[in-house]
Amino acid sequence: MTADATGPQAASPSELSGLVIGILGGTGDQGRGLAHRLAMAGHRVIIGSRDASRAKSAAADLGGPLIDGGLNHEAAAEADVVIAAIPWEGHADLLSELAGPLAGKIVIDCVNPIGFDSRGAYPIGVPEGSAAEQAASVLPASTVVGAFHHVSAQLLLDPEVDSMDLDVLVLGDDRAGTDLVIALAGEIPGMRGVYGGRLRNCGQVEAFTANLVSINRRYKAHAGIRITDV
Amino acid sequence: MTADATGPQAASPSELSGLVIGILGGTGDQGRGLAHRLAMAGHRVIIGSRDASRAKSAAADLGGPLIDGGLNHEAAAEADVVIAAIPWEGHADLLSELAGPLAGKIVIDCVNPIGFDSRGAYPIGVPEGSAAEQAASVLPASTVVGAFHHVSAQLLLDPEVDSMDLDVLVLGDDRAGTDLVIALAGEIPGMRGVYGGRLRNCGQVEAFTANLVSINRRYKAHAGIRITDV
Repeated sequence: MTADATGPQAASPSELSGLVIGILGGTGDQGRGLAHRLAMAGHRVIIGSRDASRAKSAAADLGGPLIDGGLNHEAAAEADVVIAAIPWEGHADLLSELAGPLAGKIVIDCVNPIGFDSRGAYPIGVPEGSAAEQAASVLPASTVVGAFHHVSAQLLLDPEVDSMDLDVLVLGDDRAGTDLVIALAGEIPGMRGVYGGRLRNCGQVEAFTANLVSINRRYKAHAGIRITDV
Repeated sequence: MTADATGPQAASPSELSGLVIGILGGTGDQGRGLAHRLAMAGHRVIIGSRDASRAKSAAADLGGPLIDGGLNHEAAAEADVVIAAIPWEGHADLLSELAGPLAGKIVIDCVNPIGFDSRGAYPIGVPEGSAAEQAASVLPASTVVGAFHHVSAQLLLDPEVDSMDLDVLVLGDDRAGTDLVIALAGEIPGMRGVYGGRLRNCGQVEAFTANLVSINRRYKAHAGIRITDV
């Protein structure tokens, strides 16, 4: 299709400018990688952690004037948009604790409930259907959007990588929320946000990370996905 | 990565030449589309159906000397490789009935257990984890491979479409089986077979068809996926 008002770049850049991004569990590889790329795109980023000194240290390691660190609840309170880059273990508990400061905000869940054994990665069953739906159930006053599930932390953090060659599937039940996250993903060079469906279709997107792990092992790659004909 | 012995094109063309392909449920759009493209690639194809006259009629409509039609059990018995392009409803029963003629053969399951309601498509839970794992459980003497889940039947059947712009994820627990199906997918112009993991990771690939339905609706597309960095 050709670019038009319904296309992947629908949200206007002016909605994004000045947005402060909080990253819960931001000291992990995925969180630091997203912090790095979103700061490069001009956003103030607050890395959150259970341990403020670890968050400040991670922020200092990434460097630059735009990245700061603090407790998870500080990141949740000070940010306009919050990314949950936390481990699957403890996912519901941590988000429940932060329901107050996250109320009224867009919460981007990028958590992949997958396990590993001797045969590789496999999806872990989630009673709510997906990590994102679990987040929505414990954060009824937030707008939960699923996104950034398939982004290689290693590539995000690699200073040699100028451009990320992948589409980010963005899932949610609120059009304004998914449009904003689609635009946010599009700020990172090479990355494109593509609407991927309602939240009830997020489980298979999260679980697909196990397939990407299998692909990476077989082909010695950092695989991502592109959606064709969009 | 660069092409090498572990790459997506690993299986040799000589293993494929002369393979007869049976397509169970081959009178549906997906089955006819795959029949058309695999015959264009030079294979003899037998469209199977519960109703032999419908199968013969579908074969005649597609035309050419390579496509024939018959009962499902005839397609299963005469083919070297069998594609199950059957509805999810009745999937286990139909395959169970054909366990005898399918024994010792590669069975490619392309079935997507998804439902539709007013909000669009959604995955149907499968007790075995996926349609492909269900096939493996009722066909213990066959080699089940999951593949061709995301191929647009409309594009397969469109005479104006010379090249399919997508990767076919190929899942299975038998290396020779997945290698052969990867090579088979690669015979269709534009299409590439990519190993996608073990059968236990097939559920999310099947369910992802619901996301492609959502994407198609939003962007008015015939979306497929490409795997990057492979």
